[in-house]
Amino acid sequence: MTDRLSEEGLTAEVLARLDATSDPRLREIMQALVRHLHAFAREIRLTDDEWLAGIRFLTETGHKCDEVRQEFILLSDTLGLSSLVDLINHSDVESMATEPTILGPFYVPESPWRENGDSIVEYDDGGQPTIVRGVVHGEDGAAIAGAVIDVWHNAATGFYAVQQPDEQPATNLRGRFRTDADGRYEFRTVRPVPYPIPNDGPVGHLLRETGRHEWRAAHIHLKVSADGFRPLTTHVFDRQSDYLDSDTVFGVKDSLIADFAPGPDGVLVCEYDFVLHGDEQGEIA
Amino acid sequence: MTDRLSEEGLTAEVLARLDATSDPRLREIMQALVRHLHAFAREIRLTDDEWLAGIRFLTETGHKCDEVRQEFILLSDTLGLSSLVDLINHSDVESMATEPTILGPFYVPESPWRENGDSIVEYDDGGQPTIVRGVVHGEDGAAIAGAVIDVWHNAATGFYAVQQPDEQPATNLRGRFRTDADGRYEFRTVRPVPYPIPNDGPVGHLLRETGRHEWRAAHIHLKVSADGFRPLTTHVFDRQSDYLDSDTVFGVKDSLIADFAPGPDGVLVCEYDFVLHGDEQGEIA
Repeated sequence: MTDRLSEEGLTAEVLARLDATSDPRLREIMQALVRHLHAFAREIRLTDDEWLAGIRFLTETGHKCDEVRQEFILLSDTLGLSSLVDLINHSDVESMATEPTILGPFYVPESPWRENGDSIVEYDDGGQPTIVRGVVHGEDGAAIAGAVIDVWHNAATGFYAVQQPDEQPATNLRGRFRTDADGRYEFRTVRPVPYPIPNDGPVGHLLRETGRHEWRAAHIHLKVSADGFRPLTTHVFDRQSDYLDSDTVFGVKDSLIADFAPGPDGVLVCEYDFVLHGDEQGEIA
Repeated sequence: MTDRLSEEGLTAEVLARLDATSDPRLREIMQALVRHLHAFAREIRLTDDEWLAGIRFLTETGHKCDEVRQEFILLSDTLGLSSLVDLINHSDVESMATEPTILGPFYVPESPWRENGDSIVEYDDGGQPTIVRGVVHGEDGAAIAGAVIDVWHNAATGFYAVQQPDEQPATNLRGRFRTDADGRYEFRTVRPVPYPIPNDGPVGHLLRETGRHEWRAAHIHLKVSADGFRPLTTHVFDRQSDYLDSDTVFGVKDSLIADFAPGPDGVLVCEYDFVLHGDEQGEIA
Protein backbone atom coordinates (compact mmCIF):
# COMPACT_ATOMS: atom_id res chain seq x y z
CA MET A 1 0.00 0.00 0.00
CA THR A 2 1.46 3.33 -0.98
CA ASP A 3 -0.41 5.27 1.71
CA ARG A 4 1.10 3.47 4.69
CA LEU A 5 2.42 5.85 7.31
CA SER A 6 6.22 6.03 7.26
CA GLU A 7 8.39 6.99 10.24
CA GLU A 8 9.24 10.29 8.57
CA GLY A 9 5.57 10.81 7.72
CA LEU A 10 4.63 10.42 11.37
CA THR A 11 7.26 12.96 12.44
CA ALA A 12 5.91 15.40 9.84
CA GLU A 13 2.38 14.89 11.19
CA VAL A 14 3.49 15.70 14.76
CA LEU A 15 5.37 18.80 13.59
CA ALA A 16 2.33 20.01 11.63
CA ARG A 17 0.11 19.55 14.70
CA LEU A 18 2.40 21.92 16.63
CA ASP A 19 1.92 24.68 14.05
CA ALA A 20 -1.08 25.84 16.08
CA THR A 21 1.15 26.93 18.98
CA SER A 22 0.48 30.64 19.45
CA ASP A 23 3.78 31.54 21.15
CA PRO A 24 6.39 31.48 18.36
CA ARG A 25 9.28 30.63 20.68
CA LEU A 26 7.39 27.73 22.28
CA ARG A 27 6.51 26.50 18.77
CA GLU A 28 10.19 26.64 17.75
CA ILE A 29 11.29 24.77 20.88
CA MET A 30 8.60 22.07 20.68
CA GLN A 31 9.12 21.42 16.97
CA ALA A 32 12.90 21.18 17.46
CA LEU A 33 12.33 18.87 20.44
CA VAL A 34 10.12 16.55 18.37
CA ARG A 35 12.58 16.50 15.44
CA HIS A 36 15.53 15.62 17.67
CA LEU A 37 13.58 13.17 19.88
CA HIS A 38 12.22 11.30 16.86
CA ALA A 39 15.63 11.33 15.13
CA PHE A 40 17.13 9.76 18.28
CA ALA A 41 14.51 6.98 18.36
CA ARG A 42 14.80 6.28 14.63
CA GLU A 43 18.60 6.25 14.68
CA ILE A 44 18.95 3.72 17.49
CA ARG A 45 15.81 1.75 16.52
CA LEU A 46 14.46 2.12 20.06
CA THR A 47 12.73 -1.10 21.12
CA ASP A 48 9.50 -1.40 23.12
CA ASP A 49 11.42 -2.58 26.20
CA GLU A 50 13.99 0.21 25.94
CA TRP A 51 11.20 2.77 25.59
CA LEU A 52 9.59 1.39 28.76
CA ALA A 53 12.95 1.46 30.57
CA GLY A 54 13.22 5.14 29.63
CA ILE A 55 9.70 5.84 30.95
CA ARG A 56 10.59 4.12 34.22
CA PHE A 57 13.90 5.98 34.53
CA LEU A 58 12.21 9.37 34.08
CA THR A 59 9.46 8.41 36.55
CA GLU A 60 11.99 7.38 39.21
CA THR A 61 13.95 10.57 38.57
CA GLY A 62 10.80 12.61 39.14
CA HIS A 63 9.92 10.71 42.28
CA LYS A 64 13.42 11.40 43.69
CA CYS A 65 12.85 15.16 43.44
CA ASP A 66 11.66 17.04 46.54
CA GLU A 67 12.27 20.38 48.26
CA VAL A 68 15.97 19.69 48.78
CA ARG A 69 16.84 17.18 46.05
CA GLN A 70 16.67 17.97 42.31
CA GLU A 71 17.44 14.76 40.45
CA PHE A 72 16.59 16.19 36.99
CA ILE A 73 19.24 18.89 37.47
CA LEU A 74 21.71 16.16 38.42
CA LEU A 75 20.72 14.35 35.23
CA SER A 76 21.22 17.51 33.17
CA ASP A 77 24.57 18.10 34.89
CA THR A 78 25.88 14.59 34.31
CA LEU A 79 24.80 14.57 30.65
CA GLY A 80 26.74 17.80 30.12
CA LEU A 81 23.54 19.70 29.28
CA SER A 82 23.95 22.22 32.12
CA SER A 83 27.48 23.03 31.00
CA LEU A 84 26.30 23.31 27.39
CA VAL A 85 23.51 25.76 28.35
CA ASP A 86 26.14 27.73 30.27
CA LEU A 87 28.39 27.85 27.20
CA ILE A 88 25.49 28.85 24.93
CA ASN A 89 24.44 31.73 27.17
CA HIS A 90 27.57 32.94 28.90
CA SER A 91 30.59 32.19 26.78
CA ASP A 92 32.16 33.51 23.64
CA VAL A 93 34.95 31.56 22.03
CA GLU A 94 36.34 34.76 20.47
CA SER A 95 36.62 36.51 23.82
CA MET A 96 39.74 36.92 25.97
CA ALA A 97 37.56 37.05 29.11
CA THR A 98 37.77 34.41 31.83
CA GLU A 99 35.74 31.34 30.90
CA PRO A 100 32.47 30.80 32.77
CA THR A 101 31.27 27.55 34.25
CA ILE A 102 28.08 26.33 35.91
CA LEU A 103 26.52 27.97 38.98
CA GLY A 104 25.84 24.69 40.79
CA PRO A 105 23.17 24.05 43.43
CA PHE A 106 24.92 25.57 46.47
CA TYR A 107 24.94 29.29 45.73
CA VAL A 108 23.29 31.45 48.40
CA PRO A 109 22.82 35.17 47.69
CA GLU A 110 23.64 37.97 50.12
CA SER A 111 26.89 36.60 51.50
CA PRO A 112 28.47 38.92 54.11
CA TRP A 113 30.62 41.79 52.85
CA ARG A 114 34.18 41.40 54.00
CA GLU A 115 37.38 43.45 53.75
CA ASN A 116 40.22 42.47 51.46
CA GLY A 117 42.56 40.18 53.33
CA ASP A 118 39.81 38.93 55.68
CA SER A 119 39.09 35.27 56.28
CA ILE A 120 35.84 33.58 55.21
CA VAL A 121 36.44 30.74 57.69
CA GLU A 122 33.91 30.85 60.56
CA TYR A 123 34.29 27.25 61.71
CA ASP A 124 37.45 25.20 62.16
CA ASP A 125 37.18 22.09 60.00
CA GLY A 126 40.90 21.28 59.95
CA GLY A 127 41.26 22.43 56.34
CA GLN A 128 44.56 23.61 54.93
CA PRO A 129 44.95 27.42 55.33
CA THR A 130 44.96 29.15 51.96
CA ILE A 131 45.21 32.70 50.62
CA VAL A 132 43.39 33.43 47.34
CA ARG A 133 44.28 36.66 45.55
CA GLY A 134 44.62 38.34 42.22
CA VAL A 135 43.49 41.19 39.99
CA VAL A 136 40.27 41.82 38.11
CA HIS A 137 40.80 43.58 34.79
CA GLY A 138 39.19 44.16 31.44
CA GLU A 139 40.15 42.59 28.14
CA ASP A 140 42.37 45.63 27.50
CA GLY A 141 44.37 44.80 30.64
CA ALA A 142 43.15 47.84 32.61
CA ALA A 143 42.49 47.03 36.28
CA ILE A 144 38.87 47.34 37.45
CA ALA A 145 38.46 49.03 40.85
CA GLY A 146 35.33 48.25 42.87
CA ALA A 147 34.56 44.96 41.11
CA VAL A 148 32.55 42.57 43.29
CA ILE A 149 33.86 39.06 44.03
CA ASP A 150 31.21 36.77 45.54
CA VAL A 151 32.84 33.52 46.70
CA TRP A 152 31.61 30.20 48.14
CA HIS A 153 33.13 26.73 48.47
CA ASN A 154 33.01 23.56 50.53
CA ALA A 155 34.63 22.72 53.85
CA ALA A 156 37.31 20.06 54.40
CA THR A 157 34.42 17.71 55.26
CA GLY A 158 33.27 17.99 51.65
CA PHE A 159 30.07 19.86 52.52
CA TYR A 160 28.91 23.41 51.87
CA ALA A 161 27.52 25.42 54.80
CA VAL A 162 24.04 25.24 53.24
CA GLN A 163 24.22 21.45 53.41
CA GLN A 164 25.11 21.38 57.11
CA PRO A 165 22.87 23.95 58.83
CA ASP A 166 23.33 22.25 62.21
CA GLU A 167 27.11 22.14 62.05
CA GLN A 168 28.49 25.02 59.98
CA PRO A 169 27.54 28.69 60.48
CA ALA A 170 25.34 29.71 57.51
CA THR A 171 27.94 32.13 56.19
CA ASN A 172 30.96 29.85 56.64
CA LEU A 173 33.25 29.85 53.59
CA ARG A 174 31.16 32.56 51.92
CA GLY A 175 31.86 36.24 51.40
CA ARG A 176 31.70 39.28 49.13
CA PHE A 177 34.75 41.46 48.44
CA ARG A 178 35.42 44.60 46.41
CA THR A 179 38.61 45.09 44.45
CA ASP A 180 40.81 47.99 45.57
CA ALA A 181 41.98 50.92 43.47
CA ASP A 182 44.47 48.64 41.71
CA GLY A 183 41.80 46.00 40.95
CA ARG A 184 43.21 43.67 43.62
CA TYR A 185 41.24 41.22 45.78
CA GLU A 186 42.47 38.89 48.53
CA PHE A 187 40.88 36.59 51.09
CA ARG A 188 41.92 33.83 53.47
CA THR A 189 40.19 30.47 53.53
CA VAL A 190 40.86 26.72 53.62
CA ARG A 191 41.63 24.49 50.67
CA PRO A 192 38.49 23.14 48.94
CA VAL A 193 38.17 19.38 48.50
CA PRO A 194 36.56 17.05 45.93
CA TYR A 195 33.02 15.88 46.73
CA PRO A 196 30.49 13.43 45.31
CA ILE A 197 27.13 14.46 43.88
CA PRO A 198 24.22 12.55 45.47
CA ASN A 199 24.52 8.98 44.18
CA ASP A 200 21.61 7.13 45.81
CA GLY A 201 19.10 7.83 43.02
CA PRO A 202 18.55 6.95 39.35
CA VAL A 203 21.32 9.33 38.23
CA GLY A 204 23.85 7.61 40.49
CA HIS A 205 22.69 4.27 39.09
CA LEU A 206 23.12 5.55 35.53
CA LEU A 207 26.63 6.82 36.32
CA ARG A 208 27.63 3.36 37.58
CA GLU A 209 26.03 1.63 34.56
CA THR A 210 28.04 3.88 32.26
CA GLY A 211 31.34 3.27 34.07
CA ARG A 212 31.50 6.73 35.62
CA HIS A 213 32.05 8.07 39.16
CA GLU A 214 30.09 10.74 41.03
CA TRP A 215 32.98 13.07 42.00
CA ARG A 216 33.58 16.73 41.33
CA ALA A 217 37.15 18.09 41.25
CA ALA A 218 38.03 20.51 44.10
CA HIS A 219 37.08 24.11 43.31
CA ILE A 220 36.16 27.54 44.62
CA HIS A 221 32.99 29.13 43.17
CA LEU A 222 33.07 32.82 42.26
CA LYS A 223 30.78 35.40 40.74
CA VAL A 224 32.67 38.46 39.51
CA SER A 225 30.86 41.60 38.39
CA ALA A 226 31.52 45.27 37.71
CA ASP A 227 29.58 48.11 36.10
CA GLY A 228 29.94 48.06 32.33
CA PHE A 229 31.12 44.45 32.14
CA ARG A 230 29.37 41.15 31.54
CA PRO A 231 28.86 39.33 34.88
CA LEU A 232 30.97 36.17 35.25
CA THR A 233 30.04 32.98 37.10
CA THR A 234 32.92 30.52 37.30
CA HIS A 235 35.10 28.18 39.38
CA VAL A 236 38.83 28.14 40.15
CA PHE A 237 40.02 24.52 40.30
CA ASP A 238 42.94 23.18 42.36
CA ARG A 239 45.60 21.77 40.03
CA GLN A 240 46.44 19.07 42.63
CA SER A 241 42.85 17.80 42.79
CA ASP A 242 41.73 14.37 41.67
CA TYR A 243 39.00 14.22 39.01
CA LEU A 244 40.14 17.23 36.93
CA ASP A 245 39.95 14.99 33.86
CA SER A 246 36.65 13.40 34.84
CA ASP A 247 34.62 15.98 36.79
CA THR A 248 31.23 14.32 36.71
CA VAL A 249 29.31 17.46 35.72
CA PHE A 250 31.78 18.64 33.03
CA GLY A 251 32.58 21.91 34.81
CA VAL A 252 36.38 21.89 34.36
CA LYS A 253 38.05 24.07 31.73
CA ASP A 254 41.83 24.11 31.41
CA SER A 255 42.02 27.88 31.83
CA LEU A 256 40.25 27.66 35.21
CA ILE A 257 42.87 25.40 36.82
CA ALA A 258 45.23 27.20 39.22
CA ASP A 259 48.15 26.31 41.50
CA PHE A 260 47.60 26.21 45.24
CA ALA A 261 51.32 26.77 45.93
CA PRO A 262 53.14 26.55 49.28
CA GLY A 263 53.64 30.03 50.75
CA PRO A 264 55.06 31.42 54.00
CA ASP A 265 54.10 29.78 57.32
CA GLY A 266 52.66 26.70 55.64
CA VAL A 267 49.85 28.70 54.06
CA LEU A 268 48.95 27.88 50.47
CA VAL A 269 48.67 30.73 47.98
CA CYS A 270 46.36 30.63 44.96
CA GLU A 271 46.83 33.54 42.56
CA TYR A 272 44.14 33.96 39.93
CA ASP A 273 43.30 37.01 37.81
CA PHE A 274 39.83 37.47 36.35
CA VAL A 275 39.26 39.08 32.96
CA LEU A 276 35.79 40.55 32.41
CA HIS A 277 34.19 41.00 29.01
CA GLY A 278 33.40 44.66 28.38
CA ASP A 279 30.09 44.91 26.61
CA GLU A 280 29.89 47.32 23.69
CA GLN A 281 28.92 50.86 24.70
CA GLY A 282 29.85 49.92 28.25
CA GLU A 283 26.35 48.53 28.82
CA ILE A 284 25.69 46.18 31.67
CA ALA A 285 24.78 42.75 30.37
CA MET B 1 42.53 31.97 23.66
CA THR B 2 42.65 29.07 21.24
CA ASP B 3 42.07 26.46 23.95
CA ARG B 4 38.67 27.74 25.05
CA LEU B 5 36.09 25.00 25.23
CA SER B 6 33.67 25.16 22.30
CA GLU B 7 30.09 23.83 22.35
CA GLU B 8 31.12 21.01 20.01
CA GLY B 9 34.19 20.35 22.15
CA LEU B 10 32.01 19.91 25.22
CA THR B 11 29.74 17.46 23.41
CA ALA B 12 32.80 15.47 22.31
CA GLU B 13 34.02 15.39 25.92
CA VAL B 14 30.70 13.99 27.17
CA LEU B 15 30.64 11.36 24.40
CA ALA B 16 34.20 10.29 25.23
CA ARG B 17 33.28 9.93 28.92
CA LEU B 18 30.56 7.45 27.94
CA ASP B 19 33.08 5.23 26.14
CA ALA B 20 33.60 3.41 29.46
CA THR B 21 30.06 1.97 29.37
CA SER B 22 30.48 -1.81 29.43
CA ASP B 23 27.14 -2.71 27.83
CA PRO B 24 27.55 -1.87 24.12
CA ARG B 25 23.82 -1.23 23.56
CA LEU B 26 23.60 1.11 26.56
CA ARG B 27 26.69 2.91 25.28
CA GLU B 28 25.09 3.32 21.84
CA ILE B 29 21.84 4.63 23.33
CA MET B 30 23.49 7.06 25.76
CA GLN B 31 25.90 8.47 23.16
CA ALA B 32 23.05 8.96 20.67
CA LEU B 33 20.96 10.58 23.43
CA VAL B 34 23.75 13.04 24.27
CA ARG B 35 24.33 13.89 20.59
CA HIS B 36 20.66 14.60 19.92
CA LEU B 37 20.05 16.36 23.26
CA HIS B 38 23.04 18.66 22.76
CA ALA B 39 22.11 19.28 19.11
CA PHE B 40 18.63 20.33 20.26
CA ALA B 41 20.01 22.78 22.84
CA ARG B 42 22.57 24.23 20.41
CA GLU B 43 20.05 24.60 17.58
CA ILE B 44 17.48 26.55 19.58
CA ARG B 45 20.07 28.38 21.73
CA LEU B 46 18.31 27.18 24.89
CA THR B 47 18.34 29.96 27.50
CA ASP B 48 18.91 29.56 31.25
CA ASP B 49 15.23 30.28 31.97
CA GLU B 50 14.02 27.84 29.32
CA TRP B 51 16.32 25.16 30.69
CA LEU B 52 14.86 25.73 34.17
CA ALA B 53 11.30 25.62 32.75
CA GLY B 54 12.18 22.25 31.24
CA ILE B 55 13.54 20.96 34.56
CA ARG B 56 10.34 22.08 36.30
CA PHE B 57 8.12 20.51 33.63
CA LEU B 58 9.88 17.14 33.94
CA THR B 59 9.71 17.33 37.75
CA GLU B 60 5.97 18.04 37.72
CA THR B 61 5.46 15.24 35.20
CA GLY B 62 7.28 12.84 37.53
CA HIS B 63 5.30 14.00 40.55
CA LYS B 64 2.03 13.37 38.64
CA CYS B 65 2.93 9.69 38.17
CA ASP B 66 1.55 7.13 40.64
CA GLU B 67 0.15 3.58 40.59
CA VAL B 68 -2.72 4.51 38.25
CA ARG B 69 -1.43 7.57 36.40
CA GLN B 70 1.56 7.53 34.02
CA GLU B 71 2.16 11.10 32.91
CA PHE B 72 5.45 10.31 31.12
CA ILE B 73 3.61 7.82 28.88
CA LEU B 74 1.03 10.53 28.15
CA LEU B 75 3.93 12.83 27.27
CA SER B 76 5.44 10.19 24.98
CA ASP B 77 2.01 9.59 23.40
CA THR B 78 1.28 13.26 22.74
CA LEU B 79 4.75 13.89 21.28
CA GLY B 80 4.19 11.03 18.83
CA LEU B 81 7.06 9.04 20.35
CA SER B 82 4.88 6.06 21.33
CA SER B 83 3.51 5.80 17.78
CA LEU B 84 7.02 6.14 16.37
CA VAL B 85 8.33 3.31 18.59
CA ASP B 86 5.35 1.25 17.42
CA LEU B 87 6.21 1.95 13.77
CA ILE B 88 9.90 1.14 14.34
CA ASN B 89 9.16 -2.20 15.96
CA HIS B 90 5.92 -3.43 14.45
CA SER B 91 5.47 -1.99 10.99
CA ASP B 92 6.94 -2.50 7.57
CA VAL B 93 6.11 -0.03 4.84
CA GLU B 94 6.68 -2.72 2.19
CA SER B 95 4.15 -5.08 3.75
CA MET B 96 0.53 -5.62 2.67
CA ALA B 97 -0.39 -6.57 6.25
CA THR B 98 -2.82 -4.51 8.33
CA GLU B 99 -1.06 -1.51 9.87
CA PRO B 100 -0.40 -1.66 13.61
CA THR B 101 -1.01 1.11 16.08
CA ILE B 102 -0.30 1.69 19.77
CA LEU B 103 -1.44 -0.66 22.54
CA GLY B 104 -2.67 2.12 24.83
CA PRO B 105 -2.98 1.99 28.63
CA PHE B 106 -6.27 0.07 28.92
CA TYR B 107 -5.38 -3.41 27.70
CA VAL B 108 -6.13 -6.18 30.22
CA PRO B 109 -4.93 -9.71 29.38
CA GLU B 110 -7.05 -12.85 29.74
CA SER B 111 -10.33 -11.49 28.42
CA PRO B 112 -13.10 -14.14 28.43
CA TRP B 113 -13.31 -16.51 25.48
CA ARG B 114 -16.54 -16.01 23.58
CA GLU B 115 -18.24 -17.69 20.60
CA ASN B 116 -18.44 -16.02 17.21
CA GLY B 117 -21.59 -13.94 17.08
CA ASP B 118 -21.68 -13.43 20.87
CA SER B 119 -22.00 -10.02 22.51
CA ILE B 120 -19.24 -8.47 24.61
CA VAL B 121 -21.75 -6.12 26.27
CA GLU B 122 -22.26 -7.00 29.96
CA TYR B 123 -23.68 -3.68 31.11
CA ASP B 124 -26.27 -1.48 29.43
CA ASP B 125 -24.75 1.95 28.87
CA GLY B 126 -27.22 3.07 26.21
CA GLY B 127 -24.63 2.72 23.43
CA GLN B 128 -25.61 2.11 19.82
CA PRO B 129 -25.81 -1.65 19.05
CA THR B 130 -23.13 -2.69 16.57
CA ILE B 131 -21.95 -5.86 14.86
CA VAL B 132 -18.25 -6.11 14.01
CA ARG B 133 -17.19 -8.84 11.60
CA GLY B 134 -14.74 -9.78 8.91
CA VAL B 135 -12.08 -12.21 7.80
CA VAL B 136 -8.50 -12.76 8.94
CA HIS B 137 -6.19 -13.77 6.10
CA GLY B 138 -2.57 -13.81 5.10
CA GLU B 139 -0.83 -11.55 2.60
CA ASP B 140 -1.53 -14.19 -0.07
CA GLY B 141 -5.27 -13.81 0.57
CA ALA B 142 -5.68 -17.28 2.12
CA ALA B 143 -8.09 -17.27 5.08
CA ILE B 144 -6.59 -18.13 8.47
CA ALA B 145 -8.72 -20.49 10.57
CA GLY B 146 -8.28 -20.42 14.36
CA ALA B 147 -6.76 -16.93 14.48
CA VAL B 148 -7.31 -15.22 17.85
CA ILE B 149 -9.03 -11.81 17.99
CA ASP B 150 -8.65 -10.11 21.40
CA VAL B 151 -10.87 -7.01 21.54
CA TRP B 152 -11.47 -4.18 24.03
CA HIS B 153 -13.02 -0.71 23.77
CA ASN B 154 -14.78 1.97 25.77
CA ALA B 155 -18.41 2.28 26.79
CA ALA B 156 -20.80 5.03 25.66
CA THR B 157 -19.78 6.89 28.83
CA GLY B 158 -16.29 7.22 27.37
CA PHE B 159 -14.70 4.94 29.96
CA TYR B 160 -13.12 1.49 29.72
CA ALA B 161 -14.23 -1.16 32.21
CA VAL B 162 -10.82 -1.01 33.89
CA GLN B 163 -11.39 2.70 34.61
CA GLN B 164 -14.79 2.11 36.30
CA PRO B 165 -14.38 -0.94 38.56
CA ASP B 166 -17.38 0.10 40.67
CA GLU B 167 -19.73 0.60 37.73
CA GLN B 168 -18.83 -1.70 34.84
CA PRO B 169 -18.24 -5.47 35.14
CA ALA B 170 -14.49 -6.08 34.75
CA THR B 171 -14.96 -7.96 31.46
CA ASN B 172 -17.48 -5.54 29.92
CA LEU B 173 -16.65 -4.75 26.27
CA ARG B 174 -13.79 -7.25 26.28
CA GLY B 175 -13.53 -10.68 24.70
CA ARG B 176 -11.46 -13.21 22.78
CA PHE B 177 -12.73 -14.93 19.64
CA ARG B 178 -11.34 -17.54 17.25
CA THR B 179 -11.90 -17.34 13.50
CA ASP B 180 -13.91 -20.18 12.00
CA ALA B 181 -12.82 -22.55 9.21
CA ASP B 182 -13.32 -19.73 6.68
CA GLY B 183 -11.25 -17.25 8.73
CA ARG B 184 -14.39 -15.35 9.80
CA TYR B 185 -14.95 -13.60 13.11
CA GLU B 186 -18.03 -11.74 14.38
CA PHE B 187 -19.13 -10.14 17.64
CA ARG B 188 -21.86 -7.82 18.90
CA THR B 189 -21.08 -4.70 20.89
CA VAL B 190 -21.92 -1.00 21.18
CA ARG B 191 -20.41 1.82 19.19
CA PRO B 192 -17.17 3.19 20.72
CA VAL B 193 -16.97 6.93 21.42
CA PRO B 194 -14.22 9.56 21.50
CA TYR B 195 -12.61 10.22 24.88
CA PRO B 196 -10.10 12.65 26.38
CA ILE B 197 -6.76 11.62 27.80
CA PRO B 198 -6.23 12.90 31.39
CA ASN B 199 -5.77 16.66 31.05
CA ASP B 200 -5.28 17.88 34.63
CA GLY B 201 -1.48 17.50 34.66
CA PRO B 202 1.55 19.03 32.95
CA VAL B 203 0.82 17.19 29.68
CA GLY B 204 -2.70 18.66 29.52
CA HIS B 205 -1.17 22.08 30.18
CA LEU B 206 1.34 21.58 27.37
CA LEU B 207 -1.43 20.50 24.97
CA ARG B 208 -3.33 23.72 25.69
CA GLU B 209 -0.19 25.87 25.35
CA THR B 210 0.46 24.30 21.94
CA GLY B 211 -3.10 24.86 20.70
CA ARG B 212 -4.08 21.19 20.88
CA HIS B 213 -6.97 19.24 22.41
CA GLU B 214 -6.86 16.07 24.53
CA TRP B 215 -9.27 13.87 22.50
CA ARG B 216 -8.84 10.50 20.92
CA ALA B 217 -10.98 9.50 17.91
CA ALA B 218 -13.49 6.66 18.57
CA HIS B 219 -11.94 3.21 18.07
CA ILE B 220 -12.02 -0.47 18.91
CA HIS B 221 -8.72 -2.03 20.08
CA LEU B 222 -7.76 -5.46 18.71
CA LYS B 223 -4.89 -7.86 18.99
CA VAL B 224 -4.91 -10.44 16.18
CA SER B 225 -2.61 -13.45 16.23
CA ALA B 226 -2.18 -16.84 14.56
CA ASP B 227 0.55 -19.46 14.47
CA GLY B 228 3.15 -18.65 11.83
CA PHE B 229 2.19 -14.99 11.53
CA ARG B 230 3.49 -11.79 13.14
CA PRO B 231 1.14 -10.74 15.98
CA LEU B 232 -0.78 -7.54 15.24
CA THR B 233 -1.88 -4.86 17.72
CA THR B 234 -4.12 -2.23 16.16
CA HIS B 235 -7.33 -0.17 16.30
CA VAL B 236 -10.33 0.07 13.98
CA PHE B 237 -11.56 3.68 13.88
CA ASP B 238 -15.12 4.85 13.25
CA ARG B 239 -15.23 6.93 10.05
CA GLN B 240 -17.97 9.13 11.59
CA SER B 241 -15.88 10.00 14.63
CA ASP B 242 -14.60 13.46 15.44
CA TYR B 243 -10.83 13.89 15.87
CA LEU B 244 -9.74 11.46 13.10
CA ASP B 245 -7.51 14.23 11.77
CA SER B 246 -6.24 15.29 15.18
CA ASP B 247 -6.16 12.20 17.42
CA THR B 248 -4.03 13.54 20.25
CA VAL B 249 -1.75 10.49 20.46
CA PHE B 250 -1.23 10.08 16.69
CA GLY B 251 -2.80 6.62 16.55
CA VAL B 252 -4.93 7.07 13.41
CA LYS B 253 -3.85 5.62 10.08
CA ASP B 254 -6.07 5.98 7.03
CA SER B 255 -6.18 2.25 6.40
CA LEU B 256 -7.59 1.62 9.90
CA ILE B 257 -10.71 3.76 9.39
CA ALA B 258 -13.90 1.75 8.75
CA ASP B 259 -17.59 2.41 8.16
CA PHE B 260 -20.07 1.73 10.93
CA ALA B 261 -22.95 1.40 8.45
CA PRO B 262 -26.68 1.11 9.22
CA GLY B 263 -27.78 -2.52 9.09
CA PRO B 264 -31.02 -4.41 9.78
CA ASP B 265 -33.04 -3.55 12.92
CA GLY B 266 -31.14 -0.34 13.56
CA VAL B 267 -27.94 -2.24 14.30
CA LEU B 268 -24.72 -0.80 12.87
CA VAL B 269 -22.40 -3.10 10.97
CA CYS B 270 -18.62 -2.62 10.84
CA GLU B 271 -16.87 -4.95 8.40
CA TYR B 272 -13.10 -5.09 8.69
CA ASP B 273 -10.68 -7.72 7.40
CA PHE B 274 -7.29 -8.21 9.01
CA VAL B 275 -4.21 -9.18 7.00
CA LEU B 276 -1.40 -10.80 8.98
CA HIS B 277 2.24 -10.72 7.96
CA GLY B 278 3.60 -14.23 7.44
CA ASP B 279 7.10 -14.39 8.82
CA GLU B 280 9.68 -16.15 6.68
CA GLN B 281 9.88 -19.88 7.36
CA GLY B 282 6.52 -19.60 9.06
CA GLU B 283 8.22 -18.67 12.33
CA ILE B 284 6.28 -16.95 15.07
CA ALA B 285 7.60 -13.45 15.66
